[in-house]
Amino acid sequence: MTVPMTLEWVGDLDGHARLIDQTKLPGSLEYLVCEKMEEMIHAIQILAVRGAPAIGVAGAFGVVLGIRNATDENFKSELARVAEAVSTARPTAVNLSWAVKRMVKIAESVADQPVAAIKEALLKEAKIIHADDVKICKKLGEIGHVLIDSGDSVLTHCNAGGLATARYGTALSIMYSAKEAGKKFEVYADETRPLLQGARLTTWELMQAGIDVTLITDNMAGHAMKKEKVNKVVVGADRIAANGDVANKIGTFSVAVLAKAHGIPFYVVAPTSTFDMEIASGDEIPIEERDPSEVAESFGAMVAPPNVSVFNPAFDVTPASYVAGIVTEKGIIYNPTTEKVRAIVLG
Amino acid sequence: MTVPMTLEWVGDLDGHARLIDQTKLPGSLEYLVCEKMEEMIHAIQILAVRGAPAIGVAGAFGVVLGIRNATDENFKSELARVAEAVSTARPTAVNLSWAVKRMVKIAESVADQPVAAIKEALLKEAKIIHADDVKICKKLGEIGHVLIDSGDSVLTHCNAGGLATARYGTALSIMYSAKEAGKKFEVYADETRPLLQGARLTTWELMQAGIDVTLITDNMAGHAMKKEKVNKVVVGADRIAANGDVANKIGTFSVAVLAKAHGIPFYVVAPTSTFDMEIASGDEIPIEERDPSEVAESFGAMVAPPNVSVFNPAFDVTPASYVAGIVTEKGIIYNPTTEKVRAIVLG
Repeated sequence: MTVPMTLEWVGDLDGHARLIDQTKLPGSLEYLVCEKMEEMIHAIQILAVRGAPAIGVAGAFGVVLGIRNATDENFKSELARVAEAVSTARPTAVNLSWAVKRMVKIAESVADQPVAAIKEALLKEAKIIHADDVKICKKLGEIGHVLIDSGDSVLTHCNAGGLATARYGTALSIMYSAKEAGKKFEVYADETRPLLQGARLTTWELMQAGIDVTLITDNMAGHAMKKEKVNKVVVGADRIAANGDVANKIGTFSVAVLAKAHGIPFYVVAPTSTFDMEIASGDEIPIEERDPSEVAESFGAMVAPPNVSVFNPAFDVTPASYVAGIVTEKGIIYNPTTEKVRAIVLG
Repeated sequence: MTVPMTLEWVGDLDGHARLIDQTKLPGSLEYLVCEKMEEMIHAIQILAVRGAPAIGVAGAFGVVLGIRNATDENFKSELARVAEAVSTARPTAVNLSWAVKRMVKIAESVADQPVAAIKEALLKEAKIIHADDVKICKKLGEIGHVLIDSGDSVLTHCNAGGLATARYGTALSIMYSAKEAGKKFEVYADETRPLLQGARLTTWELMQAGIDVTLITDNMAGHAMKKEKVNKVVVGADRIAANGDVANKIGTFSVAVLAKAHGIPFYVVAPTSTFDMEIASGDEIPIEERDPSEVAESFGAMVAPPNVSVFNPAFDVTPASYVAGIVTEKGIIYNPTTEKVRAIVLG
């Protein structure tokens, strides 16, 4: 089945990052070329590239773009500046700072070498982060598809697909693997306001992969559960605290509460790079608030009165008590607790 | 404060019905003139006029438009045809068939008079239904605003305002009355996909009335409750079964489940005409499913791939067990049961 390559580095150190412009999907499949760090940061901020794992990779490429013209003299200060700029492009997903930290560490590990060699090491590391993400996402599917049975009808929220990662995705990876394993199931996709990643991206990916998908608005999830149209929920994550609390796209928490009220298991799929072991619980996760216009001026039209007040948090936190299991590339953490998370992520 | 007149009859039997074209709000305030029954049915079906009480009134006007050119010979059969056509314009709100039945009953009560007189009686009755709705909605506010305290932050879903009734509204009527009583409170409005009645109509009404309103997407309601930004929920209803189960705009059930999970009281405001005492529970309420394009092609833009499957129920049912109280013009039914509903509605 067709699973798109969300972003990649083209060429050598003089090359560029190329990424699907996800703001244009599903109307047209267009690519953005980023030759400067600022272009990559902009692409991250406008959500041309989005999804925690994908923006981790984008961040690594962004560091290469930001540092490749540094001189022998200013390399160290430039690396600090670039790391800070890329890390803070968006606040909630931890993969961005995770990838940048990994890049800085590589630079430090070869700090005694000429600057040209350090730059090459950084590009190599970024490409490894990219390749690892593809492998890890494939692995998430292989491990996680045990959760999908023939006859299932699985609700997903936002896009945790190939487009949210380098390839294959997190939540959707287990659907792709389940399909490859010959299981027959269907998917309900929440449209995911305000930016409609579910309507625009998830349905597009699943239809391309030949998986039966039905689009609903976010407020239909409860009714669909009550009418027994859905028997499982599978979503991705932007950051997971040490106790298993899950930050993910706004609306995920509502879905988790509805699932619990209907006795439907709620699963999360995420690489271990999405875990932030430095924070004890989800209360500490910063929640990005985005521009009111995303809500009030949707679809190119004003859908609310001018100057209306808007609350536009981009993420919410689902307490671990709502989570039946978290699929990682190292195994599944059922009914997550700090101990169980620690055992898998650090083990 | 400004509370719009949603629809009215202009002139005598040769006159017309005039209604705010709610599909054009908040961009522009335009009026539709309906001179034929078919125009009124179309207005109801495209949601130019919507909200259970308002479409009850619209249905009564529709009967007048449909019957006024009937002859002495075909009057009886025409009335039956018109009653059927208007009653079935939309399936879920019971007010439509309630109003049509009331019109037919009036015609029957003066059946011995000349057809011209019966027509006059029908117009008079339609105007009474309209005037009654204004009075009843005002009364809902006077009775129900006891539920709103200064300092409250009230979530509402869809539009149960003046625009959903002849005037004042149901859920919003108690907010207008609370404001008149000098209470200080704020409102969160779910945008209410797919047709965005919350974003387009509720914010517009509340802003005109000088009530502090914040717009959120439907999937933010859970997060808003968790963050203690909301401490009460007040919504309208399209049909209420004899046991207190409430059919209302899609997404209402999700809000009720979220409210219960957060210990937040969930109130419904509706005239007794919204009760369908002929059905024992909400399971018997027909749920309208509308065109997929409402979800996939919002506001003139394709927001999902061509030919995507869509599930588009327009309403859902909230079991009485989630309802802290139903405000009617005859009193508040707390923790509704069949007995309590019967005592108020039939009492």
